[in-house]
Amino acid sequence: MKIALAQLNFIVGHFEHNTALMIYALDRARAQGADLVVFTELSVCGYPPRDLLEMEHFIDQCEAAIRKIAGHCKGIAAIVGAPSRNPRAFGKRLLNSAFLLVEGEICGTYHKGLLPTYDVFDEYRYFEPASSFKSIVFKGKKIALTICEDLWNLDVHALYSMNPMDVLIREEPDLIINISASPFAWSHLADRHYTFSENARKYRIPLFVANQMGGHDELLFDGQSGVYNPMGGLVDQIDSFTEDVRVFDLDEVIQSREQPGEIKLSETEKNEVIFKALVFGIREYFGKLGLKKAILGLSGGLDSALTLVLAAEALGPGNCKAVLLPGPYSTDHSISDAVQLAQNLEVPHEIISINETVDALNHALEPHFRGTKPGVAEENLQARARAVILMGLANKFGYVLLNTSNKSEAAVGYGTLYGDMCGGLAVIGDIYKTEAYSLSRHINRHLEIIPANIINKPPSAELKPGQRDTDSLPPYEILDDILFRYIERKMSAEKIIAAGHPAELVRSVLQMVNANEYKRHQTPPILRVSKKAFGSGRKMPLVARFPG
Amino acid sequence: MKIALAQLNFIVGHFEHNTALMIYALDRARAQGADLVVFTELSVCGYPPRDLLEMEHFIDQCEAAIRKIAGHCKGIAAIVGAPSRNPRAFGKRLLNSAFLLVEGEICGTYHKGLLPTYDVFDEYRYFEPASSFKSIVFKGKKIALTICEDLWNLDVHALYSMNPMDVLIREEPDLIINISASPFAWSHLADRHYTFSENARKYRIPLFVANQMGGHDELLFDGQSGVYNPMGGLVDQIDSFTEDVRVFDLDEVIQSREQPGEIKLSETEKNEVIFKALVFGIREYFGKLGLKKAILGLSGGLDSALTLVLAAEALGPGNCKAVLLPGPYSTDHSISDAVQLAQNLEVPHEIISINETVDALNHALEPHFRGTKPGVAEENLQARARAVILMGLANKFGYVLLNTSNKSEAAVGYGTLYGDMCGGLAVIGDIYKTEAYSLSRHINRHLEIIPANIINKPPSAELKPGQRDTDSLPPYEILDDILFRYIERKMSAEKIIAAGHPAELVRSVLQMVNANEYKRHQTPPILRVSKKAFGSGRKMPLVARFPG
Repeated sequence: MKIALAQLNFIVGHFEHNTALMIYALDRARAQGADLVVFTELSVCGYPPRDLLEMEHFIDQCEAAIRKIAGHCKGIAAIVGAPSRNPRAFGKRLLNSAFLLVEGEICGTYHKGLLPTYDVFDEYRYFEPASSFKSIVFKGKKIALTICEDLWNLDVHALYSMNPMDVLIREEPDLIINISASPFAWSHLADRHYTFSENARKYRIPLFVANQMGGHDELLFDGQSGVYNPMGGLVDQIDSFTEDVRVFDLDEVIQSREQPGEIKLSETEKNEVIFKALVFGIREYFGKLGLKKAILGLSGGLDSALTLVLAAEALGPGNCKAVLLPGPYSTDHSISDAVQLAQNLEVPHEIISINETVDALNHALEPHFRGTKPGVAEENLQARARAVILMGLANKFGYVLLNTSNKSEAAVGYGTLYGDMCGGLAVIGDIYKTEAYSLSRHINRHLEIIPANIINKPPSAELKPGQRDTDSLPPYEILDDILFRYIERKMSAEKIIAAGHPAELVRSVLQMVNANEYKRHQTPPILRVSKKAFGSGRKMPLVARFPG
Repeated sequence: MKIALAQLNFIVGHFEHNTALMIYALDRARAQGADLVVFTELSVCGYPPRDLLEMEHFIDQCEAAIRKIAGHCKGIAAIVGAPSRNPRAFGKRLLNSAFLLVEGEICGTYHKGLLPTYDVFDEYRYFEPASSFKSIVFKGKKIALTICEDLWNLDVHALYSMNPMDVLIREEPDLIINISASPFAWSHLADRHYTFSENARKYRIPLFVANQMGGHDELLFDGQSGVYNPMGGLVDQIDSFTEDVRVFDLDEVIQSREQPGEIKLSETEKNEVIFKALVFGIREYFGKLGLKKAILGLSGGLDSALTLVLAAEALGPGNCKAVLLPGPYSTDHSISDAVQLAQNLEVPHEIISINETVDALNHALEPHFRGTKPGVAEENLQARARAVILMGLANKFGYVLLNTSNKSEAAVGYGTLYGDMCGGLAVIGDIYKTEAYSLSRHINRHLEIIPANIINKPPSAELKPGQRDTDSLPPYEILDDILFRYIERKMSAEKIIAAGHPAELVRSVLQMVNANEYKRHQTPPILRVSKKAFGSGRKMPLVARFPG
């Protein structure tokens, strides 16, 4: 039997597009002699549909799309993912389902048993978990059909009380098919590979995984749909962040000799995959919104430089606009470094002084500020004047303003709300500052694209004379280690201190993280590349008092 | 037996405060001869703790707090709510639990079976549902102890496959105790009353409900802890939005003759409860953050007027600052109306012209805008100049900027991001414009607090000469009806058209709602007073294409 994995880029709710894409994939797979095409989880509507699932007419359209796709399953079968109505009188209204479509008919159904509801996932918000599992039969082969999380309950402390494959394996299926919507995180790639490999090995049957690709708001789906042999060896895999329909022969997979292995990314590989993911993420966000052009404020610092490199790669330099917005405390080298970068990238740039605007603001506020000491309020005026000018250009010419905040800044609130925290998309908001350095050096590995001075000079917001980030923050190597332990590992202050950081510093960093939830509440979507990004995967109270 | 209901205002994660409050309540109830004090759901840590639950040391502190409270249960017992570690080798790490504390010991435990995971609730993100239920015994009385949602599975299409009370009733308990954290929504009051009444009636035993009060980010908890007799009659209830510890005699409750009734709010009652809720919400947000002073831009329009009335009531007029920010297209009456309102409320006001700032911005952008037609970009400059000035004052003097957007505007994106959409808290963001009119008239019922002209004049953003909201929007009565059907009822365009609205208008309104998810993604928390507010209870994709 020949099975095609369809790794496609769906648009949430765009039934016309998704259906056409699936029909095209059917035609292509048929031409290659495939018997069956496997589409991804909720492929009919795109993943994640979120609260669109609560609209009855959304579910109606899913059903109509399945009928239409079934009508094109002539001489070839398909497995598609879609929400379906729960026929029982109790439980959530919907099931997260997979349908086997053969010759115009639904010939098999499977409902997801394990519903991820943690981090960025909220499937129990919509779906009732299935509690009974049966394999489906196609062309004499018994298929253990599963949906994403159904294969992920392998841990010692299992997250769910059951394991669908432990039920399905009793029927002695010939193969496992898993339809997934498993988002990208660089540090998750190894887990995912292990999980699939371990399932094939444990149950001693081949595993075919079709995983969605595409950008959906903050979530990046890399795909990497693949096939594992009964030893757990990875036989073949579709490239990440790429659409493809690839046909595999079941017998060849069973006979293949690949051994299980593990994935361990080098620093270079990590940078490569993050670079690829972020470029993809920008391209997707713009592409799916029908937008083409990005604008950003190029400060001469590392973060906006890195963001511009990524945007130029994603959208083309001609679709990017860099704006230098010198203010009263901007240094000459910031301007020359920024101009050099724009020229290196062939991105058009403008220089617009904020001085007159800042003067007007200071003049308007002078009667009210009189007698006070200049401080953060005055600094923020500069950042906000920049944002207003950038948004003016964005509104006038249809640019999307890119937010250039990194994860370290976002964590401690080192940024001006409605100032440099503006933007339609936060490109490097899931990259710690130390990772931003590493990624920048990686970008420069063959050629100095980012002027060395941008990477080497001490970071500064340049909102007052001689200002440096280290005036109010510890060095980034230390800050990032504390942040990683608190945000990713959820360690207590005590444990972070026990790991070797000064007590006072740890407490002050954690306090900054907690006190700035309100700022992060108002930030744009952040492209997620780690296992714990700010955004929908981290829900913290704003009004709380837990020191951490 | 005498049972005290403790309707208290906890702070999420503030164990010292919460524990002290509970010990104080124990002492007070003991002095009144109570045998048992019933605290609310997750009372030990405050509800909702969100991802703080993922920190091991947060759970450790919950356990320590329970031990401390148990130590004060001398001569009186308590039922407290807290997360607890799931002892099983599978499932979510935590349970949502209630503990009976008697003479220093934990003498009974109950775990929540039904975990709300919809709208603003995400309990399955953290908790494993219990599947077995046993009553607890205290002083010879068998108590069916339940937690919030456990009593809510009464519908014909039940949301859960089981009903804990159907299990517990087999033990023939003497009473039901329910510990809740059920947030306020004006249109939810009737449902809540019905649900409790119906449980008492159905199982023919008295019901004691302790419900949390307090503001937690966008969520307002009104309390209304109450006691129902076995006929389903409401015997007594603690006032909404008020802390109290009230003692009830079980025998008296059983013998009481109150009959079941239903709640149906008149328009006046609706306005009264919304007014009370919003004032409470402001007070809570500020109080729990340790902040006192609010600032807002007073435009002379209805929304900022209403917001100021609410803020002045909540914080005191002396803690509010109204800033009039006339621009090139502000009308004279806007300024005089706004001044009149500030004077009526005795709120200090300032007048700060934005003209110079707007001129400077236009001058900076002139070389880039040259040859283009003035439009939204220029209009937004005015709204953003206002925001920068307001935020300057906020940052300088420690004010929190109040956002004044109403729900209709927020829905269709009729507002400037980083302009009038700024603020730390959106006060009337869950109030449709037609509701804002009704509430304003209610406020003026005895005395013209809001100048009549503010209510009667046609609404305008005053960003271009002669501009009116109806230039780009339908009249609010029509708009709000379409919005309500789409947002609250989740109706399709077809069904809304079938209800009598013009097809083209409906499609264009729905398109505006969908296209502006990105703006709402960046708005401050909105005080929730309806069953479907923008915020954590409505999760829509930004990048999607479903016309609705």
